[in-house]
Amino acid sequence: MNYRVGIVGYRGYSGAELVRLLDRHPHVTPVLLDHREAPRHSALRTPKRPARVDLGSQTVEQEKLALVFLATPPEASMELAPMLINAGARVVDLSGAFRLRTPENYTAWYKAPHVAPDLLAEAVYGLPEFCRNRIGGARLLSNPGCYPTAANLAIRPLVEAGLVDRSAGIVCDAKSGVSGAGNKPSASNIFCQVTENFSAYSILLHRHVPEVLQVSGLEEREFSFTAQLLPIDRGILETIYFRTAPGVTAEAVLEVYERRYADEPFIRLYNPGHSPDLRSVARTNFCDIGVTVHAPTGRAVVVSAIDNLVKGAAGQAIQNMNLMLGLPETEGLL
Amino acid sequence: MNYRVGIVGYRGYSGAELVRLLDRHPHVTPVLLDHREAPRHSALRTPKRPARVDLGSQTVEQEKLALVFLATPPEASMELAPMLINAGARVVDLSGAFRLRTPENYTAWYKAPHVAPDLLAEAVYGLPEFCRNRIGGARLLSNPGCYPTAANLAIRPLVEAGLVDRSAGIVCDAKSGVSGAGNKPSASNIFCQVTENFSAYSILLHRHVPEVLQVSGLEEREFSFTAQLLPIDRGILETIYFRTAPGVTAEAVLEVYERRYADEPFIRLYNPGHSPDLRSVARTNFCDIGVTVHAPTGRAVVVSAIDNLVKGAAGQAIQNMNLMLGLPETEGLL
Amino acid sequence: MNYRVGIVGYRGYSGAELVRLLDRHPHVTPVLLDHREAPRHSALRTPKRPARVDLGSQTVEQEKLALVFLATPPEASMELAPMLINAGARVVDLSGAFRLRTPENYTAWYKAPHVAPDLLAEAVYGLPEFCRNRIGGARLLSNPGCYPTAANLAIRPLVEAGLVDRSAGIVCDAKSGVSGAGNKPSASNIFCQVTENFSAYSILLHRHVPEVLQVSGLEEREFSFTAQLLPIDRGILETIYFRTAPGVTAEAVLEVYERRYADEPFIRLYNPGHSPDLRSVARTNFCDIGVTVHAPTGRAVVVSAIDNLVKGAAGQAIQNMNLMLGLPETEGLL
Amino acid sequence: MNYRVGIVGYRGYSGAELVRLLDRHPHVTPVLLDHREAPRHSALRTPKRPARVDLGSQTVEQEKLALVFLATPPEASMELAPMLINAGARVVDLSGAFRLRTPENYTAWYKAPHVAPDLLAEAVYGLPEFCRNRIGGARLLSNPGCYPTAANLAIRPLVEAGLVDRSAGIVCDAKSGVSGAGNKPSASNIFCQVTENFSAYSILLHRHVPEVLQVSGLEEREFSFTAQLLPIDRGILETIYFRTAPGVTAEAVLEVYERRYADEPFIRLYNPGHSPDLRSVARTNFCDIGVTVHAPTGRAVVVSAIDNLVKGAAGQAIQNMNLMLGLPETEGLL
Repeated sequence: MNYRVGIVGYRGYSGAELVRLLDRHPHVTPVLLDHREAPRHSALRTPKRPARVDLGSQTVEQEKLALVFLATPPEASMELAPMLINAGARVVDLSGAFRLRTPENYTAWYKAPHVAPDLLAEAVYGLPEFCRNRIGGARLLSNPGCYPTAANLAIRPLVEAGLVDRSAGIVCDAKSGVSGAGNKPSASNIFCQVTENFSAYSILLHRHVPEVLQVSGLEEREFSFTAQLLPIDRGILETIYFRTAPGVTAEAVLEVYERRYADEPFIRLYNPGHSPDLRSVARTNFCDIGVTVHAPTGRAVVVSAIDNLVKGAAGQAIQNMNLMLGLPETEGLL
Repeated sequence: MNYRVGIVGYRGYSGAELVRLLDRHPHVTPVLLDHREAPRHSALRTPKRPARVDLGSQTVEQEKLALVFLATPPEASMELAPMLINAGARVVDLSGAFRLRTPENYTAWYKAPHVAPDLLAEAVYGLPEFCRNRIGGARLLSNPGCYPTAANLAIRPLVEAGLVDRSAGIVCDAKSGVSGAGNKPSASNIFCQVTENFSAYSILLHRHVPEVLQVSGLEEREFSFTAQLLPIDRGILETIYFRTAPGVTAEAVLEVYERRYADEPFIRLYNPGHSPDLRSVARTNFCDIGVTVHAPTGRAVVVSAIDNLVKGAAGQAIQNMNLMLGLPETEGLL
Repeated sequence: MNYRVGIVGYRGYSGAELVRLLDRHPHVTPVLLDHREAPRHSALRTPKRPARVDLGSQTVEQEKLALVFLATPPEASMELAPMLINAGARVVDLSGAFRLRTPENYTAWYKAPHVAPDLLAEAVYGLPEFCRNRIGGARLLSNPGCYPTAANLAIRPLVEAGLVDRSAGIVCDAKSGVSGAGNKPSASNIFCQVTENFSAYSILLHRHVPEVLQVSGLEEREFSFTAQLLPIDRGILETIYFRTAPGVTAEAVLEVYERRYADEPFIRLYNPGHSPDLRSVARTNFCDIGVTVHAPTGRAVVVSAIDNLVKGAAGQAIQNMNLMLGLPETEGLL
Repeated sequence: MNYRVGIVGYRGYSGAELVRLLDRHPHVTPVLLDHREAPRHSALRTPKRPARVDLGSQTVEQEKLALVFLATPPEASMELAPMLINAGARVVDLSGAFRLRTPENYTAWYKAPHVAPDLLAEAVYGLPEFCRNRIGGARLLSNPGCYPTAANLAIRPLVEAGLVDRSAGIVCDAKSGVSGAGNKPSASNIFCQVTENFSAYSILLHRHVPEVLQVSGLEEREFSFTAQLLPIDRGILETIYFRTAPGVTAEAVLEVYERRYADEPFIRLYNPGHSPDLRSVARTNFCDIGVTVHAPTGRAVVVSAIDNLVKGAAGQAIQNMNLMLGLPETEGLL
C-alpha cells in the first residue's frame, strides 16, 4: 500500500522535518507543494528531491493526494484547509488555526479574526494518547502545539488521578530550542543574540496556554506558564511544579503514569532519582517523563521532554497520519 | 592606598575571575597563593602574571596580606580559614563552608562533618544589600552562593513587604551556565554532553536551598527549587513564581523593589513588559530584575539574572572586600 | 537473511553511533560486548536495549557472531583482533591499529610498539571508493580515520588526474567537532573550554597524516595538515588548497570528480560557486565536495565535508560490513 | 584632559563595542550620534546611557567633537566622512570605504562606485604596528579590516625578513565568529543555521584580500584566502601556511617576530609547541601569534588570533584615536 501525501510549507523547520521523516516512511510518497514560494536552485549537481508542484485547486485530484500536511502559519492554514477539504483531501494542520474550540478564544489569544470558523467544530485535536478514537475518521486534524504536547502528557494523568492540590496551582516552566520559533530571520533569533544567552518571553501569556487548559482541564487561574529560549537548535523541556498530599511518593506518581500509558509506544518513564535531558529525546517521537517528590511536604516536580520538531510537530503529525490512513501508528517513527 | 590581597584557588573559574577583576582594581595588588597546586608553565614567551607564592603559615606576614580570598572547595576552606585568621589575615571565603549557621545544617546539606564549627558564629554572610552593616568589620566573610544571590535579591523584598501568598508557596526554577559547576572534567560537563542539551539536577534538594531559606525567611515547605544546566559558559537566570492578592499590579511590585533598592548600585529594574536576559548581565556585577503579573488572578513571575562568576562569586567577593577595607563599594566593579 | 554482529566499545561515540545505525539495519542483529566495562544501570523504567554479553574467548561461537566491530583504542584493538580472528570472527576495527602498513610506521606516529604486526599484511584498508574489490573477502578490515577519509576522497582523484602542481604542495586545513576526540573527560574537552573557542592541535604532526600519504600517493614534504577543534558535536570540514595549471576551471575539476565517482552512492558534488557546510552531511554517510578555482592564477580550493561519526567512523564501518557480508552496500545507510 | 568623541552606528556590533570600551576610557566622553536610526526605548527603569544626538551639519561644532567614529557600512561612510571633515572633525572610519588606494580597486572588490575618491589620497591606513608615524597627524583614519589585521601582523614580518618561499605561495585559512558579519538578520546568520555548523564563504574572493596584498607586499597569485564562519560570537583565528628554506626552525621564525614587535604593546608571541586559541584573545586588543615549523622539509604554519570586534575593529580604532589625540597608545585598552 502506498499513499501520496502533500506538504505545504516544506521549507520551514517543521515542514523540512516532515519531509525528512516521510522519506523513510515505507507506505507514503511525499509531494512538495509550492504555495507562493519563490523558486530556489540546488547547490548539488545531481539533486534528488521529491517532486515539486504548484498548489492549485486541481492539485489534489491531479496528484491523487490522500492527505495534505499544512506546515504553514495559521493565516495560511485557515485559507488552505477549506480549499483542500473541498477538493477531497484530508488535512493535517500543524498550525494553531484549528486547535481552540471557538473563534472567540482564537481571537483572544492569536489577536486576529478566525476566517474559517465553520471548520472548528469538526476539527479533531490530534493528541493520540488522549484523542485516539476520534483521529482515525478525521477529515481535518489539528496537530497539537509543541509546548502543550509536553505539558498535557505530563499534567493530565495527574489531574485525572486527583493527585494535584489544585488550590496551590501548577507551574510549568518551559524551555525551547530556537527552531520552535520558525526560520524567519529576526533580531531575536540571530546567532549572536541567542548564543551564550537565555531569556523568557510571553510570560504568563503564551498563546499555547489555552491549549493546555483545554486538554488538562485546569482553569487559567490554576496554571502559570513561562516560555523560554534555549541556545540550542531543537528540544523542549518543561519543569512542572505542583503539590500533592503529604506522603505521596515518586513511585506512586510514576504508577499513575504507568497505568495510564501502559500501551503507549511513545511515552517513556524514568526511575525515581532520574529525569530526562533533551539529548534523550532529540530526533525521536518520544515524550520522556521523570518524577521527583519531597514526600514529607508534598512538593513535586515532573520533568517532561520532547523534540519540538518531532513529537512537538512533524513526528506527531505522522503519528496522526498513520492513524488516519489505517497504518500502524508507529510506522516510520521508531 | 594599596592593599596586598591573596588568592587561593586562582585556577578555578571563580578564582580566575577574581584575578581578572582584581587586575583592574586601582587599590589592590593580587598575590597568587599555591596550595598543593602542581606547577604549570606558560605558553606565552614573555608571561606577565602576578607573583605566585607557596601558601604556608608565614605567608600572610611575609607577603603583608591584608586579606585572603579562598576560591576553594569547602573542605579546603574549612582547613585554611582558621590558619589564615590565626596568622592575622581577614578572609573572604567563596565556598559553602561558612554560609549555614550550624554544623548540623551544614552536615545535613553538604553530607560531611564541619571541621571548623567554632568559626560559624563569627562568619558574616556577605550579601551587601541585606547585611552591609556587619560586613565592614568582618574577620571571616562568607560569600553567598550563586543561586541564592539571584534568589534572595528577588524574593526577600517581596516577603518583607507581605506581597507573597505563602500558602501557595514560591517556585524558583533556576538555570545556570556550566562554569557554575567548576572546572573539574567529568562525564557531565564535557562539551558533547552539554551542547544542544539541557537538563535538571538536584531537583528539590540542591545544597543552596537552605541559604535561600535562611535569608528569605521562607520555610522549606514553602519553597520549591530546581537547578538546571544551560549550554552556555556563564550566567544564572531564575524564573520565580508566586501568588499575590488579586489586583496587585506589576507596577506595584516594582515599586516595592524600587523602594528597597533605591540606593543599591548593583540592582537594576526593568519596566513592566520587559525582563532581563543573560546577555544583559554577562561580565557585570549587576542583578537585573523584571516583573510580570496577571493582576486578575494574582499570578506573578519575577525573572532575576546575574553572572554566576561575578555577582554570583568573584564580583560580590570584591564588593565585600571593598566594604571590609573601607574602599568605595563599587571600586573596580563598574 | 540475518547476521549477528558484535560491538566492543559501544559506549564510546563511534560505538554508540554504530549501535544507533545497526538498530535500523534490516539484516543485522547487534550484540553488545563488554570488555572490562563496569556495569551501568538504566534511567528508564522499561529499558529496551540489545543484549549485553561479557566478551571472552568463547563468545564468538556461543553468540554465533559473523563479525565483530572494534570501536576501541588501538591498544585494545591490537589485543582483541587476533583473539577474535582465531575464534572465527571477521573483524572491522575502527581504531588506527591496522591502518599503516608497517610496524615501524605505526610506532613512528602512534609512539608505541605494535603488538600484532603479523596481522598488518592481511589487514584491508576500508575506503570503499578506492579499495572496494579487496574488502569483500577481508578477514580483518581496518576502517579509515575520519580526517583521512575526507582528505583522500578529495585529494586522490586530483592527484590521479595529474591536476595538482605538486611542487607547490597541498595544504589541508581540517576542522572537527569535539566527538572526534572521544568521550574521555579532560581539560581540553570540557564545555567551558570549548564553547566560544577554536584552536589548532597537532599542527603538521597529526597521526592521521601518514594515512593520507599512503592513500593519496603524496610525499610528506608535499602535504601540510593542521587539525582544529570546532565548538560543535560532530562533523569534519577540510579546506584543501592546491595549484593547478593556469586556465583550468572549477568545471574541469568537477568533471574529474564526476568521472571518478560516477557510480559512488556516498559522494555528492556541488555546482561551481557552492560548497558544502557541515549541516549538509550531519548524520549521513555522505562525503560532500565543492570546488572553487581562480583560473587566471591556477589557485584552487576544494571543500570536503563528512560527519566524523558516520562516513568518518560508524557509517563507513557498516558500509564495509555490507560489502563483507555480501549485502547491498548502502543497506541501512540512506 | 577630556575629549568629546562621536560615534555613528553605535547599534551595530563594532559600534556597541566602541561604546563599551570608550565608557572605560579615562580621557574621552562618548556622544552617540543618530544617523537615520529609529528611536528605541529602554527596558531599564533608570537607564544611564551616553547622550544621544541627531547627526547634522552643525553637530560637530555644537557638540565640540574632537573626533568621530564611523561604525557604518562603506556607503554611509563615503557620505559622512566628507561632511564631518568639512565640519572640522577628524574621522576614524571602521568601514572598508577608504582602505584601498584607488577608486578602481575599490570598485573591483566592493562592486560599487566610490563616491568620495578625493579623500582616498589623504586617508591613512591605521595599522599602528606598521603605519604608526603617519597616524598621529591623520585627518581621515581608515581602520583596517578584521581579517587583514590578523593576516598582516602575521605575514608582513616574514615577508620583510625574506623567510617565505614566495614561489609556493601563502595560504591563509581564516575563521571568524558571526559578529564579523554584522547584526542584520538574514538566512545565513540565524541561530539554527549557524549552531552545530561550519561553512566557507567568499572562497578566494573575499573583499579583504586586496588589503592583505597592499600591506604585506604579496601578489594576488601568491596569496590564497578563504573566510569561514565559526559557530561563536566573536574571534578570528587564521592558520597561515608557507614554505621556508629547509633547516629554518620555529625558534628562528619567532626571533623575527620578536625583533619586529619588541616594543609593541598588543602583540604576544607563543613558545614553540604552543599556539593561541580564541579564548586567549577574547575581549582584548591583543594579536597572539604561534609558530610551528617542520624544519627538515621547510613547511611552516603560523596561527594568528584576534578578537574581531577589538583588535579587528573597535579596539584598534581606539588605539588609533589615542595616537591621533596624543594620548598614551594603550589608554583604555589594557
